[in-house]
Amino acid sequence: MEDLATYMTQLGVQARAASRVLAAASTEAKSAALQAIARQTDQAREVIKQANARDMAGAEKDGIDQPLIDRLYLDDKGIDRMIEGLHQVDGLLDPVGEVTDLSYQPSGIQVGKMRVPLGVIAMIYESRPNVTIDAASLSIKSGNACILRGGSEAFASNQAIGQCVSAGLAEAGLPETAVQLLNTTNRDAVDELLKLHTYVDVIVPRGGKGLIERISKNSMIPVIKHLDGICHVYVDRDADIAMGADIAFNSKVEKYAVCNAMETLLIHAQVAPQLLPDLAERFTRAGVELRGCAQARDLVSGIKAAVEEDWHTEYLGPVLAVRIVHDLDMAISHINEYGSQHTDTIVSNNYPATRRFITEVDSASVMVNASTQFADGFEYGLGAEVGISTDKIHARGPVGLTGLTSQKYVVYGNGELRHR
Amino acid sequence: MEDLATYMTQLGVQARAASRVLAAASTEAKSAALQAIARQTDQAREVIKQANARDMAGAEKDGIDQPLIDRLYLDDKGIDRMIEGLHQVDGLLDPVGEVTDLSYQPSGIQVGKMRVPLGVIAMIYESRPNVTIDAASLSIKSGNACILRGGSEAFASNQAIGQCVSAGLAEAGLPETAVQLLNTTNRDAVDELLKLHTYVDVIVPRGGKGLIERISKNSMIPVIKHLDGICHVYVDRDADIAMGADIAFNSKVEKYAVCNAMETLLIHAQVAPQLLPDLAERFTRAGVELRGCAQARDLVSGIKAAVEEDWHTEYLGPVLAVRIVHDLDMAISHINEYGSQHTDTIVSNNYPATRRFITEVDSASVMVNASTQFADGFEYGLGAEVGISTDKIHARGPVGLTGLTSQKYVVYGNGELRHR
Repeated sequence: MEDLATYMTQLGVQARAASRVLAAASTEAKSAALQAIARQTDQAREVIKQANARDMAGAEKDGIDQPLIDRLYLDDKGIDRMIEGLHQVDGLLDPVGEVTDLSYQPSGIQVGKMRVPLGVIAMIYESRPNVTIDAASLSIKSGNACILRGGSEAFASNQAIGQCVSAGLAEAGLPETAVQLLNTTNRDAVDELLKLHTYVDVIVPRGGKGLIERISKNSMIPVIKHLDGICHVYVDRDADIAMGADIAFNSKVEKYAVCNAMETLLIHAQVAPQLLPDLAERFTRAGVELRGCAQARDLVSGIKAAVEEDWHTEYLGPVLAVRIVHDLDMAISHINEYGSQHTDTIVSNNYPATRRFITEVDSASVMVNASTQFADGFEYGLGAEVGISTDKIHARGPVGLTGLTSQKYVVYGNGELRHR
Repeated sequence: MEDLATYMTQLGVQARAASRVLAAASTEAKSAALQAIARQTDQAREVIKQANARDMAGAEKDGIDQPLIDRLYLDDKGIDRMIEGLHQVDGLLDPVGEVTDLSYQPSGIQVGKMRVPLGVIAMIYESRPNVTIDAASLSIKSGNACILRGGSEAFASNQAIGQCVSAGLAEAGLPETAVQLLNTTNRDAVDELLKLHTYVDVIVPRGGKGLIERISKNSMIPVIKHLDGICHVYVDRDADIAMGADIAFNSKVEKYAVCNAMETLLIHAQVAPQLLPDLAERFTRAGVELRGCAQARDLVSGIKAAVEEDWHTEYLGPVLAVRIVHDLDMAISHINEYGSQHTDTIVSNNYPATRRFITEVDSASVMVNASTQFADGFEYGLGAEVGISTDKIHARGPVGLTGLTSQKYVVYGNGELRHR
């Protein structure tokens, strides 16, 4: 345990030192590193696949769930995507050093804001080994150093990928310690990591709610986190009914196990008789179980009764809560009370209703006439994301390169003195 | 204790409800409130001064330190300044609702960022009753609700000011619960406040380091905090010597007990013989005690020896640490190692040196050829500040209206569906 603490502190010290170099690294040097990592990954295909096969064998032996095993698996197509991801991140604009709002003040000084890396980012994640490349590439591009702790079931795959990252950094003349993978699967390592507030500036956990809550509770370091994705579609009185049905269906059925899938459908009472019966049948045919309020059940027989807990639940599967609301106020109140401030959409052609929904719904993504499933970094044009934040400070919604930076003040003077 | 928890939860529930109203309030309504509070404060001058006299009598009886008593005192001039502050905040641009980066994505959706209030802000502060008006006005203008916990020594003054705020809010038709002052001086109330993560979005502590560290450690809510202000002036080899002397002198002597006062002076070895002897004499005449490295003491006799701890110390008084450095690298390393990431300035006419200093010094404010004492919200043109952050996420440096907001994503569609 003492050795573990020493090891973790050493990682922290190294990361802090590397972060100084990365923060001052040129766009060209960071680009060279990303390109070199892509080449190294391409050349190490067989090594990575062999390591992944060992992880897969271990996971099957340990009787790990099939969905987790699916996410663990890495074939040439998966490696292609990792390489493509590196090129994509390389193609993004370098956010570091951008100066905005530079203006003269009455004293004569010129004050502006400069976008700068956060410093050292620690990411804790599960299962999917491609996250290692995503995290490393976003971290390098944004001028940060990072410490990565992947899932123990993906240990061999991550180590193999980590070798490519180190080799690529070295090739580009950047410190290999800019991206450090934990060399242990010891669970206590996470607790030690959460204490390194001198060396780590922000923690980004990705995984189940249990993991994220435990980290938030114990961390002495700020956390950029994502808890629930209880997303809503509200079909307004003045909606295009066909559009409402399509958006509701797509928001749920396009993919179930994602945080931006709709979990509760709200329908204005005046359009519910037109909308719900057909839509309910469509959902049922797709295998989605509906749980509704009394009014919904009056309209469509066979809908199960929803209980209070249903409005609070992120099903992440083929179950949908349905509630009929009297007006826009009730829809907004429902979302602000039961939602998770993730992503909510209104379907409406009514101008004041859409304006009120956009203003009053307090969620990271608020949409008009679009599927909730669009809420992600690629669809928003961020190029890539390290996750989707449901926090209210720093970054809300998909966190891309900009979310891994902040702004410092820069002041240019000519010998100005302050006289109070 | 149970009553206290119930009371605090009630404040939280009320604040959350009020925050929904404030977030949707028009610029006009918020302006009407600020103007009404200014009028109420003007009309309540005698009441406020009487309350303040009670606080002053109590503080003197309790034998509270003179500097604290000075900060507690409120006369007509102080009340004038509070009223002027309200008008100033009213005159600032409303940050809420600003949409930036709205652009179409390949799917057809239009994605942008909208500036929105954080929700509920809790401020914990000491002594100066004018902070109550500053905090209330910035909170209202930025569309947030707030819970305020002032120092127990200023209890009567704060309650009297709080009455003006409530009356002003009511006059403007906004909920009085948008600004709530704790009606108790019970110290346990702060601990209860730190647990209200469902209702409070951010904590802003202002006060001594002990208070801030205790709050950061115990809070389950994100904290925007300011720890030390260990600020540096570095006089480079290529500095204008007279400018270097003036900036160093002003950064220290203009005011000692402020977080943006210089605590350590770094001087390039090549200019130290020209600069230090005269400057040391000037400091000595002003009553500033110098503590220097061996090289500094070789140049000027009578300088005390600095020990390692001096480089880490925020004196907040007439003491200055002085170190001679060999080059720019050593200056930057010293600042990044010993500084508190608050405010640091380089005095130099060398273009690459200033560029490197700006890029590589990892502080909230990095300056060229200007006094560190400029680091504050008014001087930066923010209009007012709730404090100066030494954190790295969310807001760095002086925190004004923008620091009390964040950005959510807004998505405008026309029925777009996602196909993965």
